[in-house]
Amino acid sequence: MSTIPSAVGAVGALDAVVNVGADLFADSVAAQAVPVTRVDWRPPMVGTEADLATVAADPRRRDANARALAAMLEVTATLVDVAPASEVLGLEPGQFLHAGPPISWARASGPLRGALMGGAALEGLVADPEDAAALFEAGTDVSLEPCHHRSAVGPMAGVVTPSMWMFVLEDAATGRRTFCSLNEGLGKVLRYGAYAPEVLRRLRWMGDVLGPLLRQAVRTVRDSGAGPVDVTGILTQMLQMGDEAHNRNRAGTLMLLRDLSPAMVTGAADAGFSTADVAEALRFVGGNDHFFLNLAMPACKLALDAARGIAGSTMVVAMARNGTDFGIQVAGTGDEWFTGPAQLADGLFLGDYGPDDANPDIGDSAITETAGIGGFAMATAPAIVRFVGGSVPDALATTRRMHEITLGENPRWSVPVLEFQGTPTGIDVTRVCRTGILPQINTGMAGKVAGVGQVGAGLVTPPAEIFPQALARLAELAPGWG
Amino acid sequence: MSTIPSAVGAVGALDAVVNVGADLFADSVAAQAVPVTRVDWRPPMVGTEADLATVAADPRRRDANARALAAMLEVTATLVDVAPASEVLGLEPGQFLHAGPPISWARASGPLRGALMGGAALEGLVADPEDAAALFEAGTDVSLEPCHHRSAVGPMAGVVTPSMWMFVLEDAATGRRTFCSLNEGLGKVLRYGAYAPEVLRRLRWMGDVLGPLLRQAVRTVRDSGAGPVDVTGILTQMLQMGDEAHNRNRAGTLMLLRDLSPAMVTGAADAGFSTADVAEALRFVGGNDHFFLNLAMPACKLALDAARGIAGSTMVVAMARNGTDFGIQVAGTGDEWFTGPAQLADGLFLGDYGPDDANPDIGDSAITETAGIGGFAMATAPAIVRFVGGSVPDALATTRRMHEITLGENPRWSVPVLEFQGTPTGIDVTRVCRTGILPQINTGMAGKVAGVGQVGAGLVTPPAEIFPQALARLAELAPGWG
Repeated sequence: MSTIPSAVGAVGALDAVVNVGADLFADSVAAQAVPVTRVDWRPPMVGTEADLATVAADPRRRDANARALAAMLEVTATLVDVAPASEVLGLEPGQFLHAGPPISWARASGPLRGALMGGAALEGLVADPEDAAALFEAGTDVSLEPCHHRSAVGPMAGVVTPSMWMFVLEDAATGRRTFCSLNEGLGKVLRYGAYAPEVLRRLRWMGDVLGPLLRQAVRTVRDSGAGPVDVTGILTQMLQMGDEAHNRNRAGTLMLLRDLSPAMVTGAADAGFSTADVAEALRFVGGNDHFFLNLAMPACKLALDAARGIAGSTMVVAMARNGTDFGIQVAGTGDEWFTGPAQLADGLFLGDYGPDDANPDIGDSAITETAGIGGFAMATAPAIVRFVGGSVPDALATTRRMHEITLGENPRWSVPVLEFQGTPTGIDVTRVCRTGILPQINTGMAGKVAGVGQVGAGLVTPPAEIFPQALARLAELAPGWG
Repeated sequence: MSTIPSAVGAVGALDAVVNVGADLFADSVAAQAVPVTRVDWRPPMVGTEADLATVAADPRRRDANARALAAMLEVTATLVDVAPASEVLGLEPGQFLHAGPPISWARASGPLRGALMGGAALEGLVADPEDAAALFEAGTDVSLEPCHHRSAVGPMAGVVTPSMWMFVLEDAATGRRTFCSLNEGLGKVLRYGAYAPEVLRRLRWMGDVLGPLLRQAVRTVRDSGAGPVDVTGILTQMLQMGDEAHNRNRAGTLMLLRDLSPAMVTGAADAGFSTADVAEALRFVGGNDHFFLNLAMPACKLALDAARGIAGSTMVVAMARNGTDFGIQVAGTGDEWFTGPAQLADGLFLGDYGPDDANPDIGDSAITETAGIGGFAMATAPAIVRFVGGSVPDALATTRRMHEITLGENPRWSVPVLEFQGTPTGIDVTRVCRTGILPQINTGMAGKVAGVGQVGAGLVTPPAEIFPQALARLAELAPGWG
């Protein structure tokens, strides 16, 4: 008994503690309000020493990163419209967007193929989704392009076709825009690679009823005295309501409904819809806790796009997966993708599915982690461990760990249980290489066979090698920094 | 440096730690996953030793408390109707319900008087609320009665008049019912003692439009295949979404809107309302984060009423304040109130208001703490410290401290950040007397002058002396326990 309280007495008497390794001890002392300086002694990633010396030591990097982080944090994403992709992205028949870095049909995974096949049927290019494989193999009448190349993001397979309706987000200060499709719900849905008749029926209803109803409401709210729905502001509130805005979006979805439902009700008749249509739309959105994900994602992209093309900045501006490759883009390296093999997530499975059924990591939704929420904000959403696995202490530790590889904190997005500390924001390629700590991503898991749909949800990281790749390119570019 | 890690090493090597006092150390060790047995050495409340010996030592107490707790935890509160108090409570003109234990006009505080005056004007007993004081002083045409005596609860002043619409909650298994008025919002509202024309206008709209619209929707949902709204289930979800269901009810309010809005839309025309009425109702509810409080409260009362009248049980079944007196009722002492002076809350003030403007503690809303949420669940709602004051560590410590005076945990209502531990449930009079730890209540603060309205929100406890009072009565009754 006696030795232990006296040791605590010794800690209590200290003004500060220097901690090398052993985070558990540092955390315990910090919880007792003793200032702790954590000295990071982890070895850097193998082979990065020379590039780290070039890049990390360059004084221009600090300034470029400060500008990148500030540009990102200045963005306020507002919801200004809902419209078909043909209209706002100029997508033409046969053009398909997808999640992640560029990929061909030949290398595409099952869920991406499934979503493309369903998309082809939705657009009327084939009568039966099964017939679409030949269309994509031939490749003469169809083309594939990353969402990211059109200022868009798509969860999971991320397939966007011309007739799909898109949320349109705008940065109030600059007028820049980003786009994302409407969320279909969980289970057997196109974005998880399913293409059964029910999947296509739902997508048609979303195009015929949900999209136009939301457009009418979004425009009414936008043009009212209150102004457009403040997506960045809803994210602030969500993070105080148990959502991390990647795999928990329940509070966000409900706040969106709150903000749009009055205008949906009053404007429906003029837009040609019945009260039954409105009620169905309210039930559909209210019954899908993930609906807001498709607003969180383009809000994050809008913020991160503001940091693109800043020479000398080592900040990651996109993390995205196509189900085969995991790619990142960095503020100081333009539109170049650094890619490696997408990993399998570790998590919880639906029904009888197991690890053998899961496809490697897929989707643009890691844009949430890139912006400092999702896995980076797990501490604010401890209930998520019941969906993605892990423990509550893990969730708290993850957010703390992500502060070690990020440039700063987001003052608008804070974590109440960590005494309102801002979310860890702006992944720094040099910090990742120096510490070996990889970004933590919460993710859904798609079945690896086209047509299956969702099989689970879990935790995953990028392939480690893409960060040294990006660092090497930054080192090559360093002589040209302004 | 070296002594400190080694001491931690020593803790890590232990199988268990016995802790006497010094919670900070126990918490720190517990955070490192070492089992901790906390030995409570606080002295009992003065003068309670003999009664504690009689009551706490009686073996029948344990069984009675187990039955009281089980009865309470079995209740599922569902929302089955919305109707005027004249209809469901049989309230007649001149009858007024109020929060807390019984009180006369002569002893009533400013906010209770203000709410009664406004209520008299709402009922047409006087043209001007200011004229109602004479009516209540004379006392011939009016009568005052606690909400609790009619199976009802009312936040703050808790004034209910015959024309006010009430939520009707029912325990699915037993058919027992409880009632609560509809929430008016914050600021200048009747329950905080305001009675300006805007207050009465809002109440009339609630009676003319909101109540009937909600009734139509609640009945439609109740009679659908899905069955009535499960208020107990929404509380389960809220506690995972940053609400403690007393001073944060944002997620609960949004889930109620989600569940009722489709039926409000489809049924409005038949009920004689326009889409503009529906939109106004949606905006009113969605704009009032506290709307769900008036469902959380009767759900808690419904659960606690199941534990009334169990001889030998020392479990508190009601804590309520009328702005002058704080009263409790106990399972083993029938309908008797044990009262003492209501205390002033310590917290945050609106605008230019300060401590001198605040009335002592008022309202039946402490029924939430009596049922194990509100202040008892602060750990799940750390963002609330920005509304009621205190710090995040205080909020976590409060929930842990309340486990020391409660009989058990609620398996349906859990706190994710405490690794899904159930909320501390069933306040035990003997534990309060033995430890001196008082129940922690989060509360709104009313202005002490009639007509002012809300001035702040904060933290408060009951007057200590009511627990020894209740204990003494339990000791008197002990010879008659079955």
